[in-house]
Amino acid sequence: MKVGIIGGGQLGRMLALAGYPLGLEFRVLEPKPAASAGDVAEHVRGDYDDPEALDAFANGLDVVTYEFENVPRTSADRLAGRVPVYPPPDALDVAQDRLVEKRFFRERGIPTAPFEPVGSRDELDAALEQLGTPAVLKTRRFGYDGKGQVILRSAADADGAWEELGGRPLILEGFVAFQRELSILSVRGRHGAVRTYPLVHNVHHEGILVRSRAPAPGVDADLQALAEDYARRVLEKLDYVGVLAIELFEHEGRLLANEMAPRVHNSGHWSIEGAETSQFENHVRAVAGLPLGTTRPVGVSVMHNLIGTVPSLEAMLAVEGAHVHLYAKSARPGRKLGHVTVRAADGTTALDRAEELADLLA
Amino acid sequence: MKVGIIGGGQLGRMLALAGYPLGLEFRVLEPKPAASAGDVAEHVRGDYDDPEALDAFANGLDVVTYEFENVPRTSADRLAGRVPVYPPPDALDVAQDRLVEKRFFRERGIPTAPFEPVGSRDELDAALEQLGTPAVLKTRRFGYDGKGQVILRSAADADGAWEELGGRPLILEGFVAFQRELSILSVRGRHGAVRTYPLVHNVHHEGILVRSRAPAPGVDADLQALAEDYARRVLEKLDYVGVLAIELFEHEGRLLANEMAPRVHNSGHWSIEGAETSQFENHVRAVAGLPLGTTRPVGVSVMHNLIGTVPSLEAMLAVEGAHVHLYAKSARPGRKLGHVTVRAADGTTALDRAEELADLLA
Repeated sequence: MKVGIIGGGQLGRMLALAGYPLGLEFRVLEPKPAASAGDVAEHVRGDYDDPEALDAFANGLDVVTYEFENVPRTSADRLAGRVPVYPPPDALDVAQDRLVEKRFFRERGIPTAPFEPVGSRDELDAALEQLGTPAVLKTRRFGYDGKGQVILRSAADADGAWEELGGRPLILEGFVAFQRELSILSVRGRHGAVRTYPLVHNVHHEGILVRSRAPAPGVDADLQALAEDYARRVLEKLDYVGVLAIELFEHEGRLLANEMAPRVHNSGHWSIEGAETSQFENHVRAVAGLPLGTTRPVGVSVMHNLIGTVPSLEAMLAVEGAHVHLYAKSARPGRKLGHVTVRAADGTTALDRAEELADLLA
Repeated sequence: MKVGIIGGGQLGRMLALAGYPLGLEFRVLEPKPAASAGDVAEHVRGDYDDPEALDAFANGLDVVTYEFENVPRTSADRLAGRVPVYPPPDALDVAQDRLVEKRFFRERGIPTAPFEPVGSRDELDAALEQLGTPAVLKTRRFGYDGKGQVILRSAADADGAWEELGGRPLILEGFVAFQRELSILSVRGRHGAVRTYPLVHNVHHEGILVRSRAPAPGVDADLQALAEDYARRVLEKLDYVGVLAIELFEHEGRLLANEMAPRVHNSGHWSIEGAETSQFENHVRAVAGLPLGTTRPVGVSVMHNLIGTVPSLEAMLAVEGAHVHLYAKSARPGRKLGHVTVRAADGTTALDRAEELADLLA
């Protein structure tokens, strides 16, 4: 069976590495000549919205998936006319627009931060009146890793924020003084089976994920069940197949959904070592129509992203229990170049080793 | 860094899959057009003793290793003139000849079954007189998976055995009524660091490994230390770099060395899930000059080989905790097509799941 992946980045690379042991083959569609996944998959070069490239890519594939949520809907539909595409293209519509996404969560009974659509300067003022400050103005589409958003600390910041983002469809989100950021990763198979990973605790810096710990400490069975229930509502409404990540704010015992990613997710990288079946293998199993693997954690894992630069490989590997994953990408400030996971039987040991790594990364 | 692997079979495939996360690239030398490793590594086609193929293969590599022990010594030397070759070619001389190998063990103070060289029909009679029956007549070179050997239950079997194997350099080995077969896998880095995996219990059928359990049950610290000591003697004498496997017979509390493989080994496949660092990653780390990873076991693992046929992938993956590794090879009786490992926190659970798998394989 040959699996096509739209996008040739590190997520595609890790999907392919997880899928070869199952006897699958991989092809990626990626316009750039240098693709992180290019070492381990056939690389078809072409733009994501080029019909000829899409047709050449689809030729001979058994199933298509994607590794980023900004796949053009028309491209997904074109491919879906020839070969099954999972997750379902409808998931793209939800994930590509912050307003659609938040309304989708609300309609499922999943709480979110308060929000208002902003289409004009007047609407920004009205939304600010409604939500108060601090608040965050965001582009509805194409934001990632903290890009396309401005924090408004008072109404006086409205002019500057409008100058930066105005003219595009926007959303104003009320500020939530959350205790911490969590994410829930779940996977649904072609026949409707669902498995969910334990909640992950995530730490961001300047909008980029820097560190995840799984299972998140201090999570009781009720909170885990609540997160699983939310995930299941999204999965079932979309008749979803594959891994889905939902980022959550924990706030006074409640979980507010922030956004979802219809793909494998950076906050699930720990699962390569830290779960019985990794998110990558489970995504591949799901889209290939195979039974899902158990998501049971194996010990406690802490994952650090390698952002902008990669410390000495020798030094990282010298940390007991460190598992290094490099993406074969050229260095650039703010770019995710790899990650390192330490796994240990208990949280204290994992944290001690994570400290050693953090010192190397500092 | 680009690593060359002589041989494009499943061991090369799993070495490459383990090495990409470290940012390494791979090239294999393999005469056959269909190479198990070909999906995940650049494939240079050529015979192992073709100087032009060897030169084309070596071009641009940083280090060369191999995945089978019958690499021609002259080829290893030719490559070693251009690029570091690990494990050291001297290890090939030892591993390629059962007589040299057994003498090498004895010289290191490592016990073996009794043996006699056999170069003629007369020498076979003399050796039988010396060792008694039952005994096993084996070719000194190119035997594997039970091929090239004949069991002599009485002296009357000598004619038939000579007819089958005579004319080649042979060795007669006294029969050891061993309790069980174990193996010790160890790894030595470029700077002399050594790590050893726990002893593995192996079960063979018709000369082919069918099942391994790790850590082997009923191994006390003394037995593990003895095996580690033997491994270390071999590693240090050869100034070895990489993974080394030694097959052992356990006999009345003693360990008799049967043979060694200067490469990753089938009885170490469990380590992909069952050890903190797999034999494949540690071999790659060693030959690339990187620090070794800890060999600590993670739970208890049972590995089954898939020989000749592959059961339904769906059925295998439906077994809780089953990890399937297919080699992308066409089916043929007696051919190793993949393996499945079940790992669990405790031995009882691992064995229960292994039973489920064994039922599928039967």
